[in-house]
Amino acid sequence: MSNIHNFGAGPAKLPSEVFDELEEELVNFNGTGISLMETSHRSATYIKLNAEIQDVVRRLLNVPQNYKILFLQGGGQGQFAGVPLNLMSRTGTADYVITGIWSVIAAREARKYGNVRFATPQQDSYVNIPDLSTWDLDPNASYVHICDNETIDGVEYDFIPNTNGVPLVADMCSNIMSKKFDITKFGAVYGCAQKNIGTAGVTMVIVREDLLNQAMPACPSVFDWTLTAKNNSILNTPPMQAIEVMGRVLKWIERNGKLEKMEELAVKKSSMIYDYIDQSNGFYYAPVEKRFRSKMNIPFRVGPPKGDVDLENQFIEDAEKQGLIQLRGHRWNTSLRLQFGHC
Amino acid sequence: MSNIHNFGAGPAKLPSEVFDELEEELVNFNGTGISLMETSHRSATYIKLNAEIQDVVRRLLNVPQNYKILFLQGGGQGQFAGVPLNLMSRTGTADYVITGIWSVIAAREARKYGNVRFATPQQDSYVNIPDLSTWDLDPNASYVHICDNETIDGVEYDFIPNTNGVPLVADMCSNIMSKKFDITKFGAVYGCAQKNIGTAGVTMVIVREDLLNQAMPACPSVFDWTLTAKNNSILNTPPMQAIEVMGRVLKWIERNGKLEKMEELAVKKSSMIYDYIDQSNGFYYAPVEKRFRSKMNIPFRVGPPKGDVDLENQFIEDAEKQGLIQLRGHRWNTSLRLQFGHC
Ligand SMILES: Cc1ncc(COP(=O)(O)O)c(C=O)c1O
Ligand SMILES: Cc1ncc(COP(=O)(O)O)c(C=O)c1O
Repeated sequence: MSNIHNFGAGPAKLPSEVFDELEEELVNFNGTGISLMETSHRSATYIKLNAEIQDVVRRLLNVPQNYKILFLQGGGQGQFAGVPLNLMSRTGTADYVITGIWSVIAAREARKYGNVRFATPQQDSYVNIPDLSTWDLDPNASYVHICDNETIDGVEYDFIPNTNGVPLVADMCSNIMSKKFDITKFGAVYGCAQKNIGTAGVTMVIVREDLLNQAMPACPSVFDWTLTAKNNSILNTPPMQAIEVMGRVLKWIERNGKLEKMEELAVKKSSMIYDYIDQSNGFYYAPVEKRFRSKMNIPFRVGPPKGDVDLENQFIEDAEKQGLIQLRGHRWNTSLRLQFGHC
Repeated sequence: MSNIHNFGAGPAKLPSEVFDELEEELVNFNGTGISLMETSHRSATYIKLNAEIQDVVRRLLNVPQNYKILFLQGGGQGQFAGVPLNLMSRTGTADYVITGIWSVIAAREARKYGNVRFATPQQDSYVNIPDLSTWDLDPNASYVHICDNETIDGVEYDFIPNTNGVPLVADMCSNIMSKKFDITKFGAVYGCAQKNIGTAGVTMVIVREDLLNQAMPACPSVFDWTLTAKNNSILNTPPMQAIEVMGRVLKWIERNGKLEKMEELAVKKSSMIYDYIDQSNGFYYAPVEKRFRSKMNIPFRVGPPKGDVDLENQFIEDAEKQGLIQLRGHRWNTSLRLQFGHC
């Protein structure tokens, strides 16, 4: 069993040290004699943990004090609604940059709450980030939304777009904490935990303070960033165990070279695969343009550019025999995918 | 440490057998060689688990096939919005029966989405369920909402109100799976897991099929019961680990005498305390009318009916010395509270 290599995009592999720690504290959290799962979210124990984990995030990403760090339920897709519900009321319109399936789904959800403009032309397939000079940005937009790493299509930004003062909002569900970046270039970023920083059940939002206080009246309280910030993410019972797992992963990242090291490893690991694909004389095929290839998820085909079903099934089967699991691509995309977490 | 008695209302005590099972499977779920936290929610492993846990709920509560069992994120308060967002569009109005702080908060959230009527007069303190004959029910209401057990006030229904065909919706966050009841008398019931059936992060909704397909356009997808039902609660990444903990608790209930036994124990345990309070010559005081006293949460005072702060602090302190913890009442209510989970 120890020979298993888990390439699941999310839920994804977690560091074994984190499991050791979770096992250690399962029935006796921090010497309290009870499990964290049995501990009040209003207790000193949890209030301390909540602050501690926010502090780790602040240190890792160098988050200034005028940004709030929030822990919410509902996953990445919860925030597909959360973003417009919290930010779109100012002008009733928002720009969405479409670079893959996840940005499409985000835009579709946002349409419920206002006028959604596509800032980039519809594409047949997603193999790059359209050049910034071609983006059609509305200066009146409440925000510009990007998906920083398209988990299914394998397209990742290698730059932070300048949106001329319109707040930039990024879905970082699948690459948060995989690289250093300048958070002050963003109005808000969000990421569910289950891909890079933990287990499903908690989603982190980092938002600039001056963007609060404008949630739509229809915003459910539990998705209201302002209320959540005021209550220090203890508005209602938080998903404490999922938050603890996230905290453990973040502390592991901090102990293991921080984001510089995570980025170095991501580049190294993904290059090994991309190089192998590129040197396979077309036996393997990675569709994404080199510059925008994701360092987190590598979609590729076996055989011709559209793939050969039999060869791909055989690839999956033989890989599983060698303990390489969860390699099959997303059901919305027939290509295979290699996913790299931190470990 | 083994001498600790945890009276937290929620997050609440869990059976020690459940922890043994969680520990056992932490890094190797069902022989897969990986943790459930690392397992795809689209995998056969999770699809099976998801079905299994729904089946246990169906058996325990005798849920007929025309009711859907859903697992959602966002907690009980998430469903304070979820209920109106999914059910209020039919007539734009709903009746809320106010019996304590939780029903007030539910009604306040519902106001965002339509016309909320109070079916019972405002009360100064909550010590009973107003007689059904005094309820002012609107035949045009989309639904009637009750809080079946008021966790803070300690008031619990001992009957299912007849609402003359208007769908009855119950918040059972703090007494779900503590007694048998006839689910067919309800349009929908919901309960967060962290009080009676697990850990924070998952909320169960049981809803009659014919009430689906009427969510408001503003309903976030992750709170849309119809979409969730269509996707068998795998619309987005479910909080799998919290769902697994819930499943473990439900299976434990099934192995340990089912709801009949849970009810018997709840009556027995709560009676011991209520009897002691009632026989204390007024040293302890339980404000709720006998008939409606909660079998889950016992708010009580030490000293006079409004309590004596010093005596109560001393009570808490001495109790903690004896390993009786998390006894202090909710910050919104100064009374003390004893909480009984299943164990
Ligand atoms: C980029 C991106 N955004 C959003 C999501 C949705 O996350 P969740 O399943 O938590 O809703 C995912 C999940 O795969 C994702 O990869
Ligand atoms: C009766 C009742 N309803 C709703 C809630 C809210 O649950 P959550 O904290 O999961 O939002 C609670 C929590 O204490 C409760 O006791």
